[in-house]
Amino acid sequence: MKINISRQHFIKAVNTVSKAITSKSVLPVLNGLKLEVTHEQMTVTGSNTELTIVTHIPCKQDDQTIIDVITPGIVILPAKYVLDIIKKVQDNTIQLEKIDSGLIRLSTSTSEFQLNDLPVEEYPIIQLITDQPSFTISSTVFKTIVRQTLFCASTNESRPILTGVHFIIENNELRSIATDSYRLAQKIVHLPKAPGFDKDIVIPAKTLNEFLKTIDDEERLITLYFGDNKVLFTWEDTYLQSRLLEGNYPQTNRLIPTEFTTELTVDHTALYQAIDRALLLAREAENNVIHLNIQANKIEVTTNTPEIGQVRERVTPELFTGEPLRITFNAKYALDALRALDTDLVTISFVGEVRPFILRAKNDVKVTQLLLPVHTY
Amino acid sequence: MKINISRQHFIKAVNTVSKAITSKSVLPVLNGLKLEVTHEQMTVTGSNTELTIVTHIPCKQDDQTIIDVITPGIVILPAKYVLDIIKKVQDNTIQLEKIDSGLIRLSTSTSEFQLNDLPVEEYPIIQLITDQPSFTISSTVFKTIVRQTLFCASTNESRPILTGVHFIIENNELRSIATDSYRLAQKIVHLPKAPGFDKDIVIPAKTLNEFLKTIDDEERLITLYFGDNKVLFTWEDTYLQSRLLEGNYPQTNRLIPTEFTTELTVDHTALYQAIDRALLLAREAENNVIHLNIQANKIEVTTNTPEIGQVRERVTPELFTGEPLRITFNAKYALDALRALDTDLVTISFVGEVRPFILRAKNDVKVTQLLLPVHTY
Repeated sequence: MKINISRQHFIKAVNTVSKAITSKSVLPVLNGLKLEVTHEQMTVTGSNTELTIVTHIPCKQDDQTIIDVITPGIVILPAKYVLDIIKKVQDNTIQLEKIDSGLIRLSTSTSEFQLNDLPVEEYPIIQLITDQPSFTISSTVFKTIVRQTLFCASTNESRPILTGVHFIIENNELRSIATDSYRLAQKIVHLPKAPGFDKDIVIPAKTLNEFLKTIDDEERLITLYFGDNKVLFTWEDTYLQSRLLEGNYPQTNRLIPTEFTTELTVDHTALYQAIDRALLLAREAENNVIHLNIQANKIEVTTNTPEIGQVRERVTPELFTGEPLRITFNAKYALDALRALDTDLVTISFVGEVRPFILRAKNDVKVTQLLLPVHTY
Repeated sequence: MKINISRQHFIKAVNTVSKAITSKSVLPVLNGLKLEVTHEQMTVTGSNTELTIVTHIPCKQDDQTIIDVITPGIVILPAKYVLDIIKKVQDNTIQLEKIDSGLIRLSTSTSEFQLNDLPVEEYPIIQLITDQPSFTISSTVFKTIVRQTLFCASTNESRPILTGVHFIIENNELRSIATDSYRLAQKIVHLPKAPGFDKDIVIPAKTLNEFLKTIDDEERLITLYFGDNKVLFTWEDTYLQSRLLEGNYPQTNRLIPTEFTTELTVDHTALYQAIDRALLLAREAENNVIHLNIQANKIEVTTNTPEIGQVRERVTPELFTGEPLRITFNAKYALDALRALDTDLVTISFVGEVRPFILRAKNDVKVTQLLLPVHTY
């Protein structure tokens, strides 16, 4: 292999696929970045077996040469160094050449790196599941779904299935749920085009995190392919494929209450800031636990940490129905839930002081944030 | 004590003195922030016994009321919480009041914090040494002195005296030296006004670091007072006083060579970037060790790390005199030294491959960066 490649295009591709490469891979060849060069394009692959990212750089684009291919070929470069090197060299073009004795030369006018090649034949064959059922969705919509649910996925491996986000496709609707058993987030999206199939899968939180890091902010269409134990996200020249979590996700439908004894609507910012300030004292002394005293004309957020002191924050509700209530919960979880609601007015609905309560944007049931109260004695 | 205080002025003062407060002070009262309110001003103090920072907020400034004093007094607030609280509350004015039972109430229109007071009588009495010999210097000049030397101070406590920066005032000159015994930095500044005294002190690196964090970027005059075992920096309403390191700083004068066998002058940026790239491979496999091959018309920066690969960087010298040379050194130290030289052209002077070499801005002997070569076998 011997090529001259535009440095900026190379940086972008390597940056993208690097997110799938962990430095502690069991298979040493997976610490590498696979480059496959033909006369049409270069395919760049990074993988850690669970997650694979593939991207393509065309040799020509709009009559501009991006890669000047002297000899096609396949090489595997040590991923850890390549990104830093190509970011730090100066020229606009980089020459890459496989030379004798298992070395790859990466050079510019003043710099010459010789990096050990990794054995191409040991790199696993990764099939992208582009022949499986799929649907297409706006990247902005899908990123919002992920942002509003992902933070509720468990980080505790004792129930592995809860470390993913549950996606249910049924009757033109996509329902996403995450829970760590202390809180739950659910988002329902109507799919404008019927996908023509039903599906019930659990995508690892790690995959969704890498997806958010890999895709940029531009609004575009992304296509999701659903295999038996894999999911593939693709947009433009990039493919992100992940294994799915195996097992049955718990039934969460009946966890979300539908009848309430107390309901209030309050300014989102005022409530967020009051809880945020109360957390200043609650976060160390009381495991983030705060109290809400809800009355018709006044909400008080309080903490009481004798070692440090106490806080009393007042917020005036916009609307209130039902019974006054005193309830205790984790302030950090409440802030996470509020951050996931894009709204000026938040409605909070309670079923007494020991039952889960829900937070929603006013007059919107598409996103539900559910929190369990904390029992204090 | 009872006052209403401008939140912005309070934040600025607390932010400044907080830098002297460690959370693990042996004396519990030093986890606190001391506020002394008179009808003229509030004095805010933070201290960890080694370092003390004091700042003043006037009650009135330019006919504006900054502090409305209802009752003067002294309180000590838990420093850890106060800064976060006053940053996060909303109003422009904060009310502070010492209430019954050892509590201080900090309140705004919607927030009320009650914080445990710390015992005022246990707070140590700190005398600022404003009666000692002093001189005044531009803050920009003094910050540059510190920035060009401080990084060479040792972080190893086995020779405590080397964890400070040596300041020598003699014949209208201020000479500053720091060394960790692998490298050395020296800066000489002519003092425009004769201070009228000689002095030889070692200021802890920690103090100089906090000084850099505490002072802002505006150019102003700072006054340095020199006591027997203390130094005091003061500017505007702020006082930063520190103990000095005790012991004899090693004689460093004769360490700096004055006659050379090889000298070269090279573009600062080109050399910096070449070493920075070589470090990408050298940093893990070789303890940051790189080689310089110096010839009349070519400098090569190389590494050789068989596990990963090798680098060869070429830089063309602007000037060269003396013998060709191959020398081995720590790339990280070389980058630190280059960063401390504000210059487009750097002159490097060698006395063979096993003796210390020095880096200076071309035609400038005020700043000297000295590095020891690494012996490889």
